[in-house]
Amino acid sequence: MSKNLTKRTQDYSKWYNELVVKADLAENSSVRGCMVIKPYGYAIWENMQAALDKMFKETGHQNAYFPLFVPKSLFEAEEKNAEGFAKECAVVTHYRLQNDPDRPGKLRVDPDAKLEEELIVRPTSEAIIWSTYKGWIQSYRDLPLLINQWANVVRWEMRTRLFLRTSEFLWQEGHTAHATKSEAIAEARQMQTVYATFAEEFMAMPVIKGVKSDSERFAGAEDTYTIEALMQDGKALQAGTSHFLGQNFAQAFDVKFTTKEGKQEYVWATSWGVSTRLIGGLIMTHSDDFGLVLPPKLAPIQVVIVPIYKGEEELVLLSEKINMIVKTLRSKGISVKYDDRDTLRPGAKFAEYELKGVPVRIAMGSRDLQNNTVEVARRDTLKKENISQDILIDFVVELLEKIQNNLFKSALDFRNNQITEVNSFEEFKNVIENKGGFIAAHWDGTPETEEKIKELTKATIRCIPNDVKEEAGTCVFSGKASAKRVLFAKAY
Amino acid sequence: MSKNLTKRTQDYSKWYNELVVKADLAENSSVRGCMVIKPYGYAIWENMQAALDKMFKETGHQNAYFPLFVPKSLFEAEEKNAEGFAKECAVVTHYRLQNDPDRPGKLRVDPDAKLEEELIVRPTSEAIIWSTYKGWIQSYRDLPLLINQWANVVRWEMRTRLFLRTSEFLWQEGHTAHATKSEAIAEARQMQTVYATFAEEFMAMPVIKGVKSDSERFAGAEDTYTIEALMQDGKALQAGTSHFLGQNFAQAFDVKFTTKEGKQEYVWATSWGVSTRLIGGLIMTHSDDFGLVLPPKLAPIQVVIVPIYKGEEELVLLSEKINMIVKTLRSKGISVKYDDRDTLRPGAKFAEYELKGVPVRIAMGSRDLQNNTVEVARRDTLKKENISQDILIDFVVELLEKIQNNLFKSALDFRNNQITEVNSFEEFKNVIENKGGFIAAHWDGTPETEEKIKELTKATIRCIPNDVKEEAGTCVFSGKASAKRVLFAKAY
Repeated sequence: MSKNLTKRTQDYSKWYNELVVKADLAENSSVRGCMVIKPYGYAIWENMQAALDKMFKETGHQNAYFPLFVPKSLFEAEEKNAEGFAKECAVVTHYRLQNDPDRPGKLRVDPDAKLEEELIVRPTSEAIIWSTYKGWIQSYRDLPLLINQWANVVRWEMRTRLFLRTSEFLWQEGHTAHATKSEAIAEARQMQTVYATFAEEFMAMPVIKGVKSDSERFAGAEDTYTIEALMQDGKALQAGTSHFLGQNFAQAFDVKFTTKEGKQEYVWATSWGVSTRLIGGLIMTHSDDFGLVLPPKLAPIQVVIVPIYKGEEELVLLSEKINMIVKTLRSKGISVKYDDRDTLRPGAKFAEYELKGVPVRIAMGSRDLQNNTVEVARRDTLKKENISQDILIDFVVELLEKIQNNLFKSALDFRNNQITEVNSFEEFKNVIENKGGFIAAHWDGTPETEEKIKELTKATIRCIPNDVKEEAGTCVFSGKASAKRVLFAKAY
Repeated sequence: MSKNLTKRTQDYSKWYNELVVKADLAENSSVRGCMVIKPYGYAIWENMQAALDKMFKETGHQNAYFPLFVPKSLFEAEEKNAEGFAKECAVVTHYRLQNDPDRPGKLRVDPDAKLEEELIVRPTSEAIIWSTYKGWIQSYRDLPLLINQWANVVRWEMRTRLFLRTSEFLWQEGHTAHATKSEAIAEARQMQTVYATFAEEFMAMPVIKGVKSDSERFAGAEDTYTIEALMQDGKALQAGTSHFLGQNFAQAFDVKFTTKEGKQEYVWATSWGVSTRLIGGLIMTHSDDFGLVLPPKLAPIQVVIVPIYKGEEELVLLSEKINMIVKTLRSKGISVKYDDRDTLRPGAKFAEYELKGVPVRIAMGSRDLQNNTVEVARRDTLKKENISQDILIDFVVELLEKIQNNLFKSALDFRNNQITEVNSFEEFKNVIENKGGFIAAHWDGTPETEEKIKELTKATIRCIPNDVKEEAGTCVFSGKASAKRVLFAKAY
C-alpha cells in the first residue's frame, strides 16, 4: 500500500493528506470541515487522553462538563474574546423541524420555533464557564478552582485539514480561578510545562516553550504560553497553549471573592488546551515515505506478530508458540496483536503494519520453531534482526523503550538543526525560502514590524522562548534596538 | 446539611432535585434545559464510562468519533427516525457573527452567513454514521463493523430534570453493521445483557430485560430491547436500550455488501446507548433522607478518613498513623480521601460525607491511638463499629464488598415487592394509584388499548420481559385473549 503513498519530498502536504486516510486515521465527512475520526486514529487520541488526564489529576485538577451552547449575551460579555471568535461561530437559531408541506416525507425548519436568543456552539468555553463560576466562588476558601473539561468545540474554519484544522475538533480545556495574580501565572506556566512534558515524553516530539507576542495571543488573554513543535517540512506547529487571563473574565462576569481580610476582589483566571491537532503533529514529526511511525507510548498496537506458514498444520504449531508469547508480552502491559488472518500473505501484512506505524513487528515461521529463533523488525529504522526466542520478551521490552528514545532524539536533532540565527532581513528571507525551520532573530517589539515581516515572508513570531538570553542587537527589519531574539517560522 | 434536605415521603421529586444540587453533582445552567455536571457528578460518570468502555472492548467494539452536525438532507433520509426526532432538533442556520451596528460592543448573527443547508445538532447519530458506513462497507469481509462513540447529543426537551431529561446529555452510542439478520439480533441482545450486567454489578440497580411494544420502540427500529429499573417512588426508569434496526438505515443510505457468494445485499444494523441519565437512576435507587448513597464500585471516594483531635500536636501524631493507612488502602486500589481540613469540625465533615454518599467513613482520635482502635461507619446502614487497627485494612476491603452486595440486595427486594400481578382494570388502577411499581397484566397486543390505558392511568408498557412465561389470559382492559403478561408502570 505504501507504494501508492506520495513521497514527502514530492509533495509534503499531499503525503500528509494521503497518509491520514490510507492509515485509517480519519476522513472528511459530509459536513463541511468536520472529520470522522476512525477507530485507529481514535485509539491514538484515547492514549493521549489517558496520559494527559493522569497528569492533570496529578496536578490537582478535576474534570467537569459544561453546556455545548453559549447564549449570545454571555458570549459577547468578554468583548475581546467574543471579537476573536465571532467570525467562526456556528449559531443555533431554531429548536424544531416540521414536515415540509411542499416536499412530502421531507423536513424543514419550523419558523415558529425560533429561539428568543441565539445559541453559539462553543468555540471555547470561557464565557459559559465563568458565568457558572460566579455562582461557585464567594470566598478565598473556594479558591483555587482547578477544573478541566474534555469536549468537542466548533470553529467555522474556511480552509480545513484533517486533524490540523477542522470545524469541529475534540480537545480538553482547563479553566482555573485563583486568589492572586502570581498564583494564576504560576498555574498557566505549570500547564505549559505539563504540555511540554507530554509532547516530549509521550509523543517524542520536541517543543520550544515560549510566550506569544501581543498579536498572536489568545483573544481575551493577558499572556499566552505556548509549546511550538517543528514539522519535517520546516513549518512550525503550535501544539498547545496556556493562557493567563488576568481578571478579564472575572470582570466581564462579575466574579469576586472575599479575601481573608474581608475585602472584595476580582478573581484571577487561566485557561489551557490541547486538541486532536496533536495527532497531526504526531504524524508529521515521525512518519516517513512508508507510512506512519508511532512512538510506542501512544501506539494503539505496540507489537504485531505475523506467522509465516504453509498449511493449517504449520499454523497450529506456530500459533501454540505465538499465543504464549502474546500472553507474556501482555502481562508486561504491552499491547500486542497476533495477525493470523488467512486472507492476506505475510508480505501484505508487513506493508499494512508499516503503513500503520506499529513500532515492533515479529515474524515467526516453521524454521524459527526448529531453530528457536524469531525475526524482530523495528519500524523507526526499518531494521530487522534474528534473535533467540529465549531472549525475545526482554528484547521487545527494551526495544520499545529504545524506539521511543530514538524517535525523540531524531526529532530533536532535526529540530535543533532547523533553528537558524539570522542578523539581516536578506538572510531572514533566504533562510525562510530555502531552509525553513525556526529563525532566531532580533525584533523591535512592535506589531507593525511583525505584520510587515508576515506580509513579506509568511513567517510569524511563534514565540519568545522562556529560556531566551538577553542579548543587545538590532531588529532585522527596522534596525531598531532589541534586547533579545524571538523565534519566527512559517506555521500550520 | 442533610437537615435541610426534603424527606422522600414528603416530596420525592423535590428531594431528588435538592439532593442533586446539595451533593454537588450538577446544576442547571444559563442555557435552557442544559446542565453543568460538577466535578463530583462527573467523577461518577467517569467511573461508569471506564467500566462500560471495558465491557464494550471485551465484546469486540472499537471507539470512533463522528461529526456533531448532521446535514438536514441526511437527517431526513430515514423517515421514521427523522420524524421521531424532528420536534426536538436544535438547528444551526448561520456560521458567523458580526458587530451589531445598533449596539456598540455587541454582536449579531451575520445575515450574509446563512448556511445553504441547515445542520441538525445530532439527537442521535444513525444518519451521519450510516452515511459514513456506505464508504466503509463493500464486502462481507468488512463485516461485522462494531463501533461505539462517546459523545454529547441534543434533544430539545420542553420539561427537563437534572440527569433524567436534559436538552444536552452525554452518552455512548454503539452502531454496528452485520451480514445477517440473526447476527444483528444477537448483537442487539448481547448489548442488552451487557447493560443489565453493568446496571446490576456496578450500579447495584436491578433491572428487568425486555422488549418494547410497537409504540414505545425507537424511531426507525424493528425492535427495541430495554433494561427497566424501578425507583423508590414506584416509577420505572428506562435505563438503557439496544435496537435491532433491520435494514432500515442500510436502505435509506444505500449500504450494500457483496456476500461470499457474490450477491449484493443490504447490511443489517443495531444501535444501543446509555447516558448520564444513569446517574439519575443511581441516585434514585439507593439514596435516602440523609443524602446520596453510592455503591462502592462507582463511588469517586470509597473511603474517607476524618481525624478527631485537639491542637496541632495531636493532629501530627494522628496524621502519621492515618497516612500509613491511606497508603495501604490505596495500594489495594481503594480510593481514599484524608480530610484533615482545620476549617470544619468532625461533625460537619461527617454530615458532608453522609450527604455525598461516601460508602465508608473512618474516624480516628487520640484515644484510638492509645487503644489501637478505630471507628468505621458504613453509609448504607449508617451503622458504626469500633475495631482494632490491626484488622482495619481487610475489614474495609470486605466491607466495601458487603456494601455493594447489600445495596443490590435491598434494591432487588424492594423491586421484587413492587411487581404486582393484576387481573382486572379496577385492580390495575388501584395498584397504580396506591402502590405503584410494575404491574404484570394481560394485554391484547393493540396500540389502541395501550394508548387508552396510558390516558386513564398514565401507565405505559415498560416492556415484555425476555423471560415472560406463556400464560393464557384476557386483556385487563379489553377482555380480549392474551398469551402473556406485560409490565406496565408510570415512568420517568
